[in-house]
Amino acid sequence: MRDGEGTQATGTLIAIGGHEDKEGRRTILREVARLLGKGRLVVATVASHEPEGYFDGYKRAFADLGVTDLVELYVKERAQTALPETLRLMEGARGVFFSGGDQLRISSTLGDTPVARRVMEIFAAGGLIAGTSAGAAAMSDTMLVKGSNAESHRIGDLHMAPGLGLLPNVIVDQHFAERGRIGRLLGAVAQNPRELGVGIDEDTAIVVRGDRFEVIGAGGVYVVDGAGVTHSNIAEAAPQRALSMFDVRLHVLGDGDSFDLARRRPADMPEMRETRALEADAAGERGAQPGG
Amino acid sequence: MRDGEGTQATGTLIAIGGHEDKEGRRTILREVARLLGKGRLVVATVASHEPEGYFDGYKRAFADLGVTDLVELYVKERAQTALPETLRLMEGARGVFFSGGDQLRISSTLGDTPVARRVMEIFAAGGLIAGTSAGAAAMSDTMLVKGSNAESHRIGDLHMAPGLGLLPNVIVDQHFAERGRIGRLLGAVAQNPRELGVGIDEDTAIVVRGDRFEVIGAGGVYVVDGAGVTHSNIAEAAPQRALSMFDVRLHVLGDGDSFDLARRRPADMPEMRETRALEADAAGERGAQPGG
Repeated sequence: MRDGEGTQATGTLIAIGGHEDKEGRRTILREVARLLGKGRLVVATVASHEPEGYFDGYKRAFADLGVTDLVELYVKERAQTALPETLRLMEGARGVFFSGGDQLRISSTLGDTPVARRVMEIFAAGGLIAGTSAGAAAMSDTMLVKGSNAESHRIGDLHMAPGLGLLPNVIVDQHFAERGRIGRLLGAVAQNPRELGVGIDEDTAIVVRGDRFEVIGAGGVYVVDGAGVTHSNIAEAAPQRALSMFDVRLHVLGDGDSFDLARRRPADMPEMRETRALEADAAGERGAQPGG
Repeated sequence: MRDGEGTQATGTLIAIGGHEDKEGRRTILREVARLLGKGRLVVATVASHEPEGYFDGYKRAFADLGVTDLVELYVKERAQTALPETLRLMEGARGVFFSGGDQLRISSTLGDTPVARRVMEIFAAGGLIAGTSAGAAAMSDTMLVKGSNAESHRIGDLHMAPGLGLLPNVIVDQHFAERGRIGRLLGAVAQNPRELGVGIDEDTAIVVRGDRFEVIGAGGVYVVDGAGVTHSNIAEAAPQRALSMFDVRLHVLGDGDSFDLARRRPADMPEMRETRALEADAAGERGAQPGG
């Protein structure tokens, strides 16, 4: 949604790794509610091939969190995005919540439509855009799409597509503890280390404001930084080959940790200079006492 | 098996991530056969609670690879390790292959027994010690043992135990594409970054000679180096908390890649100094053009 907009992002993004708690403490949905205040929330269920169920689930989950003005946005076909009744649903909305399903349904149905422009306007006006599972993946510039997880360590099994671009230079992956996810996020970053890989566990989210995000929820967030990579075989190797990638920097973040996307550092942490000093010390030590 | 031995390792270790191909090209078993030559191979099935099946499977798989002198070593109870008929099986053996199951069965049944000492003698005499799945995990000094994978991002779900110590200062994890594995290997390394974490995919192996290993097989090998870690919450956080760990160095290796365990570098790759220069350049670039 960056294309042709040139708008400075001023709202808040919440990217959720899927399976957020809907019945207990609801840490993540509670944060969504807090940021919305009394505003209207559009629950966009377009990622599903069938709309049933998701909306009612969120309606129940949000009921006693103070979010009472909820509307469902579901379009089966791209043509429906221009209908007056579709756009009327979004009038006065303070936030949009993309539910799970297939991220290609979101991008192919909404990309470059009046609905997508309305989402961007809500965001630019200081509103909240949240997404869980496919809804989180779709926030990327270039997003990961479904492939065979079991085989995702093979270079040829990595599938990407143009996403909504709400999070520039970030590739979001979700359900991150699932089989094979770290391999495919690493492969995606190897393709262009300009992109920062962010893998989010289930019932875990990043809350992004400007260049900074904070982690909330039960699990972990994995940040894959390829800036220092010294070798990868992503361009040379045959599709059935396994990925080779040396010197990736990885951060694991938990509830309460923050990350600075511009500096590519955990927030409030010393610069790389000190990290490198630590590494040099360690290397020196090992050099002095060779062998295992 | 290091304790009290003081033996300089001179043999070859093969740690396999589980589910190695037994019917097709058999890249890994072929390498086992090549290294064995015409020597006797002891297939140790002690990791299983029941011995049936594994031995016959390997007998079939190795038959046309030239390994014809195969014997099965199975002990149900620790007391059996001292029986003359048990030790007679290992006479003249050139290699030992530990099959999968439960790594705690291997360490608790064989640790500090005549069988374990015989394994170490075979290794010291230039023989081959191979292990798949639990048999690979057990090679570690301190090994990962089964926990709940789904929850392994929580600090309290990390379970470790003393392993055989064939691979000093290395923690081997196997079936590495499975759910939650990267989180638990990171947690294990956070506990003491002296240990290098090595996660091995299925049908993939590391072949270790001295301080160097080479990767063979279909998948990837993930090397987790915690030497440069600037922060972790492993000691402070409550067991139900998620792991926090900043500035991990990660290498992804595929078939044909080599790694130097003493230098902690992919083999034949420039030293960290150059990596750091690359990182400094990248940081400088980002500093000059702030924003995402």
